Amino acid sequence: MNGARALLATLVDNGVEVCFANPGTSEMHFVAALDDVPEMRSVLALFEGVATGAADGYARIADKPAAVLLHLGPGLANGLANLHNARRAHVPMVVVVGDHATYHKQFDAPLESDIEALAGSVSGWVHRTERTADLAADAVDAVSASRSGVVSTLILPADISWGPAPETDAAQPKPESPGEVDRGALRGAAEVLRSGADTVVLIGGDATRVGGLSAATRIAAATGARVLCETFPTRLRRGAGVPAVERLAYFAEAAEAQLAGAQHLILAGAVSPVSFFAYPGKRSDLVPDGCQVHTLAEYDSAAVALEQLADDLAPGAEAAVAAAARPDLPSGPLTAVSVAAVVGALLPQDAIIVDESNTAGVTLAASTAGAPAHDVLTLTGGAIGYGMPTAVGAAIAAPDRPVLSLQADGSAMYTVSALWTQAREQLDITTVILNNGAYDILRIELQRVGAEGAESPGPKARDLLDIGRPTLDFVQIAQGMGVPAQRVHTGEEFAAALEEAFGEPGPHLIEAVIPSLVG
Amino acid sequence: MNGARALLATLVDNGVEVCFANPGTSEMHFVAALDDVPEMRSVLALFEGVATGAADGYARIADKPAAVLLHLGPGLANGLANLHNARRAHVPMVVVVGDHATYHKQFDAPLESDIEALAGSVSGWVHRTERTADLAADAVDAVSASRSGVVSTLILPADISWGPAPETDAAQPKPESPGEVDRGALRGAAEVLRSGADTVVLIGGDATRVGGLSAATRIAAATGARVLCETFPTRLRRGAGVPAVERLAYFAEAAEAQLAGAQHLILAGAVSPVSFFAYPGKRSDLVPDGCQVHTLAEYDSAAVALEQLADDLAPGAEAAVAAAARPDLPSGPLTAVSVAAVVGALLPQDAIIVDESNTAGVTLAASTAGAPAHDVLTLTGGAIGYGMPTAVGAAIAAPDRPVLSLQADGSAMYTVSALWTQAREQLDITTVILNNGAYDILRIELQRVGAEGAESPGPKARDLLDIGRPTLDFVQIAQGMGVPAQRVHTGEEFAAALEEAFGEPGPHLIEAVIPSLVG
Repeated sequence: MNGARALLATLVDNGVEVCFANPGTSEMHFVAALDDVPEMRSVLALFEGVATGAADGYARIADKPAAVLLHLGPGLANGLANLHNARRAHVPMVVVVGDHATYHKQFDAPLESDIEALAGSVSGWVHRTERTADLAADAVDAVSASRSGVVSTLILPADISWGPAPETDAAQPKPESPGEVDRGALRGAAEVLRSGADTVVLIGGDATRVGGLSAATRIAAATGARVLCETFPTRLRRGAGVPAVERLAYFAEAAEAQLAGAQHLILAGAVSPVSFFAYPGKRSDLVPDGCQVHTLAEYDSAAVALEQLADDLAPGAEAAVAAAARPDLPSGPLTAVSVAAVVGALLPQDAIIVDESNTAGVTLAASTAGAPAHDVLTLTGGAIGYGMPTAVGAAIAAPDRPVLSLQADGSAMYTVSALWTQAREQLDITTVILNNGAYDILRIELQRVGAEGAESPGPKARDLLDIGRPTLDFVQIAQGMGVPAQRVHTGEEFAAALEEAFGEPGPHLIEAVIPSLVG
Repeated sequence: MNGARALLATLVDNGVEVCFANPGTSEMHFVAALDDVPEMRSVLALFEGVATGAADGYARIADKPAAVLLHLGPGLANGLANLHNARRAHVPMVVVVGDHATYHKQFDAPLESDIEALAGSVSGWVHRTERTADLAADAVDAVSASRSGVVSTLILPADISWGPAPETDAAQPKPESPGEVDRGALRGAAEVLRSGADTVVLIGGDATRVGGLSAATRIAAATGARVLCETFPTRLRRGAGVPAVERLAYFAEAAEAQLAGAQHLILAGAVSPVSFFAYPGKRSDLVPDGCQVHTLAEYDSAAVALEQLADDLAPGAEAAVAAAARPDLPSGPLTAVSVAAVVGALLPQDAIIVDESNTAGVTLAASTAGAPAHDVLTLTGGAIGYGMPTAVGAAIAAPDRPVLSLQADGSAMYTVSALWTQAREQLDITTVILNNGAYDILRIELQRVGAEGAESPGPKARDLLDIGRPTLDFVQIAQGMGVPAQRVHTGEEFAAALEEAFGEPGPHLIEAVIPSLVG
């Protein structure tokens, strides 16, 4: 067998069963070998950012890595923004970047570039395989490294891929070493929580599923501490029957209000809260003055740490859970608020919400708080264009769960060809485009940063935030990629369209026309 | 004034008059300052790769840099592939990457990443401004550096942008130092060319316009040397009345045939020919055995070197030019060949062809050889997704020239939102999508690389090269972004549509449905 086949066989032997691909010439042996390894599912993307975002979504739901196949430095470059988000999400992923043959690199052919520099900016593990005989072992290392919650990037020169590989037994993964709980941190947190001082427990990482949420809310009930969730969790469980935890707000002013009065901040899988951006005259560090910060656990051991802490502080206590409740179906012209109400009213059981609604989703959390239990995936790294690709991966990881992709119009256009992969794979994804014709977040930010003249921005500044000239017709764009689509203007129309989309298999897109918040 | 305004004022004082932008929060002061600097035209892109590709196309036609405004590391990442092409094209460009405020970086906010690592992979000049007082001088340096044919990347922290800038006289650019001709290289080339040995002059860089082409063909006529043009020139002048120079073929086998027998290879603005990719058992270096390679001039001094050489070797000789000739209009079902014939038959005077037709453009050069004189822009770095953005920039640089964007279906989908900017700016661009429903180049390459089982690739391998499942409907996609579009299936339909598009101002898209070459 050749190197490519050995690599693929090793990946599937190590639990990697899906490869999101956008290949080129240097990956042709990898592509040809796919037919020899039937256990590997290959999913084509028309753009690399779709492939990397899909692998992120897959990992968030499957709790294991997918592979991504990319073409040289420019292919990796196109996938970097969603790898940035994956890095912030601490998800496992194995990125295979095909490169020129080892002996060909010296010639500086047109596509030659510095792959290591790009890979290093997003990866926790980077390695270039220099001998075909090493490929299987390198693949095991890549998968093992990724399982600690990082992007592993394996650079695969074309001749390493086509060279003869030794017949070996399937290489097995190294045993996983789950994050360990720091006993001292546990004792320190318990002491703080017993003291009666005003304390916030900020959860994130693996603590945003039922186990961590339950433990955190039990601790809160027993000690009077407040619990908050990081602003952009990788995967947050919520809805009826799930302990409800409020998320830290995106806007720093609101986050400061949530944290006000805290004398202690205990971090369980989250990082210390900072403003998403800097603003003139405003604080970057959102920890209140005089508040002491304690790190209980990192992202990969927060749930178990909280559970041990809860068993210590709140033995026998039960976590309070959210009651089932749905908003009434709204009528009349759609707004961001009524879109969220319809979603809350109609969300199916055990849905996955991929949330890139940005400003248009401001009331989404409230509207869905009592909806049937569901998972929410969020924009962990802030690099827009994550939503529609991530929905692809989530749907492939959980083919029996409905995926609702809530997508702002502006960010939709970064990786819009994800719709084509949704159609190709007939994934059960309902995409709602929240079309307000603007980069609304930037209209708000232009005021918040206190830009000179921002009280009355000039026509050129306003124009750069106006994406309604010309109007983007997402119905035509979606249909052009094979996804059935319709446009809605009222609550009634949206509810009917959403019920229809949830009721039918395969992808659907609904363009919800709403007013800009800022105008 | 603040830093942003000082930066913009300095850019326009130094001849940078267009900014292709995809801004975010950290760029809001730059955006707000645009209204204070009316000489700077701002053009919004919905994706960063559109902005960088547009700046490349602008520079190729305007012969001066545009600015690009990008948002932090992920924004730069999304623009990298077209910056890679710009690097290979040796075009000037000033990329401004907004970053977090200097004091904010320590907090590792979600969008924080290693901007320098990314910028370094494509830029000839990278600088982070640390004090607002330095911004104007840094901008002068950025523009000056770019004029040697490189991407300059200026990293602009938000607080440097919003901080107070000193009122200064407009900073002036450093004088340009055109590439110098190496006298020894000139003498050596003259000696080779006088020797009567079989010699190929391979031209590229600035020698692919009328001056360099005329000089090279005069030399050939006087000495018997053959002239070839590099495979992917930045901007090639050709057509009726222009000295005709054949391009070196993309496929290595064909290029080797063109170079066969050469005892000397003189490089005038081109690099020594290498295979685009490596293939098992095939050569990477395409220089024939025993052939001596001589570098006459680099990319920025090739035209003047050839002109001096021509004055020495061929005084008084006139360059032979291509005769006016057009193919007959074809009829019946469209093929790649008949598409090219229609283009050759109908191309308007002084058009700009942006060529990303890939396999579908195989007969384009022959069909347009005698068409009215025109410029051809090509895929210099091999990173697909360059065509539609580059057409944006070319049309903005030359509003009175028709731009014909020949675009393969697969590569169209990387940066398809360029169509929206074409509509927004009402650019006179005719886009022809050559829709064969496949990554045809990869079907060919799968055979050429000799992949295991490639004679009869399996269904999974074939599926990864098939983009016709589902069919991409470019008419709907274009209309969804505001560009009028129609689909054509015959020579007659295509000719009518092309005449209509050339006859009307503003953007048009024609989807030409053609069979795959490979099937």
